[in-house]
Amino acid sequence: MKSITEYLIFNTESRFELINITLDVEKILNLSGIKEGLCLINSMHISSSIFINDDEDGLHNDFHNWLEKLAPHKPINQYRHNDTGEENADAHLKRQIMGREVVVAITKSKLDFGPWEQIFYGEFDGNRRKRVLVKIIGE
Amino acid sequence: MKSITEYLIFNTESRFELINITLDVEKILNLSGIKEGLCLINSMHISSSIFINDDEDGLHNDFHNWLEKLAPHKPINQYRHNDTGEENADAHLKRQIMGREVVVAITKSKLDFGPWEQIFYGEFDGNRRKRVLVKIIGE
Amino acid sequence: MKSITEYLIFNTESRFELINITLDVEKILNLSGIKEGLCLINSMHISSSIFINDDEDGLHNDFHNWLEKLAPHKPINQYRHNDTGEENADAHLKRQIMGREVVVAITKSKLDFGPWEQIFYGEFDGNRRKRVLVKIIGE
Repeated sequence: MKSITEYLIFNTESRFELINITLDVEKILNLSGIKEGLCLINSMHISSSIFINDDEDGLHNDFHNWLEKLAPHKPINQYRHNDTGEENADAHLKRQIMGREVVVAITKSKLDFGPWEQIFYGEFDGNRRKRVLVKIIGE
Repeated sequence: MKSITEYLIFNTESRFELINITLDVEKILNLSGIKEGLCLINSMHISSSIFINDDEDGLHNDFHNWLEKLAPHKPINQYRHNDTGEENADAHLKRQIMGREVVVAITKSKLDFGPWEQIFYGEFDGNRRKRVLVKIIGE
Repeated sequence: MKSITEYLIFNTESRFELINITLDVEKILNLSGIKEGLCLINSMHISSSIFINDDEDGLHNDFHNWLEKLAPHKPINQYRHNDTGEENADAHLKRQIMGREVVVAITKSKLDFGPWEQIFYGEFDGNRRKRVLVKIIGE
């Protein structure tokens, strides 16, 4: 069994941001030399997500509005977590809807993807340095 | 390490459909000869899901109504993604709640499941040909 | 390839409970001797979750209120699943938001976690005996 472990770093300038990281993951896969296996990509922080969906600006706008409706940022004092001095309780909730991680099949040295699958880092509480883990195991 | 990679194809006749695919996955497991490992099952499309829950018609009806409440299909023009000519923005949102993939343990050549766990393909934008990937790695 | 498979048992006294199981998973990892690999932790029941988030009481209170808003327990008769004599339809929905499973990277014999990541068992229909599966594969 072979494995590779790499970390990506993000520090967004806005609270909410969706960043396509598919090429970053492909570079790590190419480094690994792994032909058949599984690739885990996860946020190492609890107010951001890794997810797979479409790279289309209108949809990203829809995600923003929809998450804000399901888990609104304001009023800050509606959340008990924010009594600790934080104001990111909503980001912890949004991340549960969008997910912490994805697991992707590696087949014939490629991410085994359908036609529109792209990997995104979803930031819901930006302006902080955050890490994403990419780990591939296989042969 | 051994691995097997197979693809299932679905083309539903209605927009919303939940299909039990547990037996399909078990067949692939039996073909593989893998005794201990991990099995990834994921939708290869971004408006459908793979998830594990109960095979009970009333609950499936509840899922339908609940997802329609959280991410309504209509009005179409509430979503910017639909400005592209699509009318499936809601399906992209529904899929985030239900999830893209599941990872299942393989133990002693079986799906290592609790008493009610069943694997479902969740279609939220049907009438299109779609694929599901099943990949097992192990020994 | 090495693997280990263990089961944790929970029987909560309240309907809703969030239990930090990170130390339980670390014990299993230490038993396994696995240095590099992937660890799957999943609920074996369909009305509970495994998820990763912050171990902060205020946030757990927020999760409770938020899930109750998105998928209310009452009135019982709003759900067709409850026509079967159950009253846990809401727990099946809550579990989809919080997720069935997590996959965690094992790097240098440790759970490869960010600073605040903790693993939780989320019970949404307690007072029943339930199991959680922990499976690690690697080398």
